[in-house]
Amino acid sequence: MSQKPKTAITPTREENYPEWYQQVIKAADLAETSPVRGCMVIKPWGYAIWENIQKELDRRFKATGHKNAYFPLFIPMRYLQKEADHVDGFAKECAVVTHSRLEADENGQLQPAGPLDEPLIVRPTSETIIGELFAKWVQSYRDLPLLINQWANVVRWEMRTRLFLRTSEFLWQEGHTVHATEEEAMEETRTMLDVYADFSEKYLAMPVIKGEKTEAERFPGAVSTYSIEAMMQDKKALQAGTSHFLGQNFAKSSSIKFLNAESKEEHAWTTSWGVSTRLVGGLIMTHSDDDGLVLPPAIAPAHIVILPVTPKPDSREAVLEYCRNLKQSLEAQNYLGEPIRVELDDRDIRGGEKTWSWVKKGIPVRIEVGPRDMEKDAVFYARRDKAVKDKVSQDTKTFVSEISALLENIQSQLYKKAKDFQKSHTQVIDSQEDFEAYFSQEDAGYASVGFCLDSQLEDELAKRLKISVRCIPNDTVSETVPCIFTGKEGKRVIFARSY
Amino acid sequence: MSQKPKTAITPTREENYPEWYQQVIKAADLAETSPVRGCMVIKPWGYAIWENIQKELDRRFKATGHKNAYFPLFIPMRYLQKEADHVDGFAKECAVVTHSRLEADENGQLQPAGPLDEPLIVRPTSETIIGELFAKWVQSYRDLPLLINQWANVVRWEMRTRLFLRTSEFLWQEGHTVHATEEEAMEETRTMLDVYADFSEKYLAMPVIKGEKTEAERFPGAVSTYSIEAMMQDKKALQAGTSHFLGQNFAKSSSIKFLNAESKEEHAWTTSWGVSTRLVGGLIMTHSDDDGLVLPPAIAPAHIVILPVTPKPDSREAVLEYCRNLKQSLEAQNYLGEPIRVELDDRDIRGGEKTWSWVKKGIPVRIEVGPRDMEKDAVFYARRDKAVKDKVSQDTKTFVSEISALLENIQSQLYKKAKDFQKSHTQVIDSQEDFEAYFSQEDAGYASVGFCLDSQLEDELAKRLKISVRCIPNDTVSETVPCIFTGKEGKRVIFARSY
Repeated sequence: MSQKPKTAITPTREENYPEWYQQVIKAADLAETSPVRGCMVIKPWGYAIWENIQKELDRRFKATGHKNAYFPLFIPMRYLQKEADHVDGFAKECAVVTHSRLEADENGQLQPAGPLDEPLIVRPTSETIIGELFAKWVQSYRDLPLLINQWANVVRWEMRTRLFLRTSEFLWQEGHTVHATEEEAMEETRTMLDVYADFSEKYLAMPVIKGEKTEAERFPGAVSTYSIEAMMQDKKALQAGTSHFLGQNFAKSSSIKFLNAESKEEHAWTTSWGVSTRLVGGLIMTHSDDDGLVLPPAIAPAHIVILPVTPKPDSREAVLEYCRNLKQSLEAQNYLGEPIRVELDDRDIRGGEKTWSWVKKGIPVRIEVGPRDMEKDAVFYARRDKAVKDKVSQDTKTFVSEISALLENIQSQLYKKAKDFQKSHTQVIDSQEDFEAYFSQEDAGYASVGFCLDSQLEDELAKRLKISVRCIPNDTVSETVPCIFTGKEGKRVIFARSY
Repeated sequence: MSQKPKTAITPTREENYPEWYQQVIKAADLAETSPVRGCMVIKPWGYAIWENIQKELDRRFKATGHKNAYFPLFIPMRYLQKEADHVDGFAKECAVVTHSRLEADENGQLQPAGPLDEPLIVRPTSETIIGELFAKWVQSYRDLPLLINQWANVVRWEMRTRLFLRTSEFLWQEGHTVHATEEEAMEETRTMLDVYADFSEKYLAMPVIKGEKTEAERFPGAVSTYSIEAMMQDKKALQAGTSHFLGQNFAKSSSIKFLNAESKEEHAWTTSWGVSTRLVGGLIMTHSDDDGLVLPPAIAPAHIVILPVTPKPDSREAVLEYCRNLKQSLEAQNYLGEPIRVELDDRDIRGGEKTWSWVKKGIPVRIEVGPRDMEKDAVFYARRDKAVKDKVSQDTKTFVSEISALLENIQSQLYKKAKDFQKSHTQVIDSQEDFEAYFSQEDAGYASVGFCLDSQLEDELAKRLKISVRCIPNDTVSETVPCIFTGKEGKRVIFARSY
């Protein structure tokens, strides 16, 4: 009788994927639900991942000419009403502030007091309030382009929440730009989509498909919405970032006008784009395994943990000293232009428990150093992307000098594995019959099909098969293909189930 | 008839200090009021200062063992009620969320809908919600100390607001720590006060006095509150950062308990500490002059601006090329361990307007390069801490090699000037008569006096003279001195008017 291998996470991905996801987060101590409905607490290891995401994206935003600013948390209720689609999109789920203080009632219980003249909405996104301000900032074509980004918290009152993927409050960045011409605004929309895609692939090792959304999934108020779509290990798609071409819709509703070079007044063209803490959810579901989190080195809060093995009290201090020196040597090396990040775990707990705690936290490389390794001037190391018991002994000097290459190798292997997974679960489908058969499978993956983009048909398919058009991939958007449902002229699209 | 020198800012500090402050902010394009009452918009130049503050403080927090995390924006109303002093301190001014969506009424007007079972407070500070979570995180003495920091926005519904100094929403960091012993928590409280003081003096070039607050100015719920107090140019004090020893007050109200090494349950000891965007206000009022903002190099978004002088079209491109090379050479130099930050302003506007825009923005060094400078391989430079017309010619090679020393000199001169100002407006006062006379002046400065710390007396002085005890300075807290009002035993304190 073959015994099932024991895993650190119960249930496994195969047994119960959604529950596995929650358990990976718990085992890695990334985040937890809070006493406030739908709001999460991001714990230090999870927040450090977000900080790394912020740092690299912020660098890329600045390199493409954007500057950060900060706008109010609150939006007057009437602002939301300015853009018709926008209010439809956000009014259904928003936190409404109606009072400005608390007063104790006759029983000593606090009650809201000081009613506001006009209720305020906690921003679900900031197009309307930022539009109001941009209308003042932009006067002449000389003020354009205006390229602004904000790092902020936003609130959307979600009914069903899930850590990182869908929470009532989440952290994000929202870019908001104003341009003199349609072409320039379109170019910006595409540039930022490219920034997101390149970041996701290089740093999160998460392959994505770039493309345009159909009308059904367009941002409320946008002319066109582009997204990057990643495939999770349950073969569902995760929309990981969006970039919106807003045309003149918000410029008109917020009166963002400028005098052009001929001193004529024109409405400007705007864009907005954002990614959120949802990226952390995508990262978890792309790489992690049944032993817990797996972190690509480029985004890991720490690259390496050193685990001193100190069986005898008399050699303990010498081993620790050796480990401290090793930590320094490693920290003097660079990876992606920054010093290697090393943890030395000298907690006084059982070796097995200690090792597993780091496996579950997804640290890319674990190093064990005991008295015998020290004598040989060698380390025993293990990669998180290989089996836990797969340890390699190497002389310390070589290990240190090759650490950057090792991390780079782990990074590229994780990307390759995820890319292969995405490819092997993407099916080009040419007939409606095959399409129906494909999506009769619960874990279907992506279907790449010709589609006439009819909204009613899309809606019918969505309801019946629980799928949606994830995007019209940029790669194939210039080609015309027949629709597998209607035979009409269409575009190649990706259908999938999604988060 | 002597003509009054023209200044870039109207009114001058002497004419109307509060209005001068608003005009400096406007002229430097740091921030503006928003359409949402009491909330400010932080514009790119102002936000870049805040980012620099964040970056250096974050480095110092991490160097002292703290980790960042993120907690919910909302706090259930009942949490605020857990700590009696705390609710008294914050219930009077807070944004209360009562509904979870908007619905159009019969006239198509949006109205709050979906009333919440329990109102939520937008965090004015997070002791209560973080306490609730820490109670779960802390089980054993092995979990301690717990050293957490959060960068976040908070809301206090202020009636009279002023950009950066007092706004309904502001950005800040709040440290929250848990310790096994009273001594360790006290030590943490002092360490973080020292971090704030050292940062303020080294980076903001803003001298501060460290000390303990009297009961009247203590944080609601704290056992003791320490602050750093800076002197603005109108001689008023600005509380620029606080560090609170919370004793076991919040540990008791939130049930933060741990098993000690003897397996006995104890309540933990907690601290909290914070600085906010108020620091930007302090920075402005410490150094700026009647020509606008003056930025210490350590915190300036850019250290140097290069202003190409291109009188003739035929030499324009050569001058620009020279400036681009100069920019690169400067950026290859370091100041405080980071590359020098250089702007090249090649906008096509009048030279005078361009120069003054940078003077008003407070950039530490301006460089002019024209065809003749280029021929001599020299630059014309001006320091923001000297007169605007005070320009020096220097050969480019020397200028580049000495740039770090020049910035360091500006930084230390600004600190020295502010320190001299603080010293020359601090009066040691030994009698009640002299004290009354001193504070009969509208722009009195600091009075250093012996005080018995009687609350009623403090309250009476506060009301009558519009002053307060800023702190009991750490420097002299071990000494006992007679109270100038009662003759009783007392401590040396600083009285002043304040923001």
